[in-house]
Amino acid sequence: MNLKAAQDTRSEAQVAARLSHIRIVLINTSHPGNIGASARAMKVMGLQHLHLVTPKNFPCAEATAMASGADDLLERAVLHDSLESALDGCSLVLGTSARMRSLPMPQMDLRSAAKSALSEHEGQHIAIIFGQERAGLTNDEIHRCHQLVHVDTNPDYSSLNLSQAVQVMAYELRMAVIGGAGNTIAPSDWVPVDAGQMEMFFVHLEQTLLDIKFMNPEQPKRLMARMRRLFNRARPDQNEINILRGILTATQQTAQKHDN
Amino acid sequence: MNLKAAQDTRSEAQVAARLSHIRIVLINTSHPGNIGASARAMKVMGLQHLHLVTPKNFPCAEATAMASGADDLLERAVLHDSLESALDGCSLVLGTSARMRSLPMPQMDLRSAAKSALSEHEGQHIAIIFGQERAGLTNDEIHRCHQLVHVDTNPDYSSLNLSQAVQVMAYELRMAVIGGAGNTIAPSDWVPVDAGQMEMFFVHLEQTLLDIKFMNPEQPKRLMARMRRLFNRARPDQNEINILRGILTATQQTAQKHDN
Repeated sequence: MNLKAAQDTRSEAQVAARLSHIRIVLINTSHPGNIGASARAMKVMGLQHLHLVTPKNFPCAEATAMASGADDLLERAVLHDSLESALDGCSLVLGTSARMRSLPMPQMDLRSAAKSALSEHEGQHIAIIFGQERAGLTNDEIHRCHQLVHVDTNPDYSSLNLSQAVQVMAYELRMAVIGGAGNTIAPSDWVPVDAGQMEMFFVHLEQTLLDIKFMNPEQPKRLMARMRRLFNRARPDQNEINILRGILTATQQTAQKHDN
Repeated sequence: MNLKAAQDTRSEAQVAARLSHIRIVLINTSHPGNIGASARAMKVMGLQHLHLVTPKNFPCAEATAMASGADDLLERAVLHDSLESALDGCSLVLGTSARMRSLPMPQMDLRSAAKSALSEHEGQHIAIIFGQERAGLTNDEIHRCHQLVHVDTNPDYSSLNLSQAVQVMAYELRMAVIGGAGNTIAPSDWVPVDAGQMEMFFVHLEQTLLDIKFMNPEQPKRLMARMRRLFNRARPDQNEINILRGILTATQQTAQKHDN
């Protein structure tokens, strides 16, 4: 092995290490060929972790054929029966969308999103989620996201194929690594909690809003959707979640005393 | 049509105009599905001109199926029996390659190549050529190029599918027009409230935390400092502040009922 090859190997190991905390999550994928093509798109850019939520027809020969040598990623793909399980341990969830939404969310362009994903703290897991081919992300899925990533496309024809969307995302992630980008620096003592903790917080919040009769269970409207958007934007750390849940518990105790 | 839509249309016409001098040239393509997927990849990013040099099996139903609504690009695709004819009138020819070559050529990365393609003189035609799926560009084809464009990939697996290569090229060309990063879009209905409103919210929050006895007035510690950091990070808008203050009022009313 000559020096050039040795250097290439070393630097690719470094690229892989920088990308190893990122998982690509495909939800309800209809066409197994798209799963295979996505695995290929990931591997070619150095991404490793594919998670599949309730895919139709998987495993499947068509997926393996389209993976074309990236079948090791398919074999190691983690199957989930819920999005919640796929997001386990993730402190940042990015949702990809080419459409505008009725309840607008903070939207980043792809390049900025890739840079921000790379600038997360060491050891933090990040999920980038892609919805079903035709429908895209549902509102419930979007409410699990901290931010939406908008892929700029021709407004007259924004029909970006799923594996092509994965390809440009994977490409920008690789560029963010090899371009030395990622200049956004988070405060050193701020490590956002994972998605599971956020869900427990939202369950607690909803119950408390019912307890104090702020929320009408017959007419919940979009209250929790709005609360999700607000608190996902804030991305609380462990200390902050502890305080928030302490406030909720104290509020519930106050309400119970009143009821007794 | 509202003003926002009118602006979008106008700017897309500008994007299309900036990209209109660029042709994508696919040489000896084996799989018609790749031609269709490439047409889709182009159209979604606003590219219009597809040129095909001696494709196998074209026109073909599989190409049309994979084009998925970009079939107008296929219909207008120009067929050539030689690369020379496909490059007619082009002042700049860029060849794409994921492989290193024994014969050293000037190589640009994709992003720089896209920028340089956009900075050509007005009225100059530019060809970006893609070789046959397995073999890539032949030496003869490479010798027609002014520059090679190198797509950085995992050196252990550089098997970038043809239509995926077209997709990232088309994406970078579009980014070169619209300006790439820094286009993070705040939701249209999200206008953070001013500092005065935030102060009123923090006063209300502090009083409520005292009312439910979560906060000890003798030992407030850094509780409000932490709440400030959290909610200032979230930057609530008017609607969200109204909800938050509504929750605080409902909490206070619950606490008062208990005291009475």
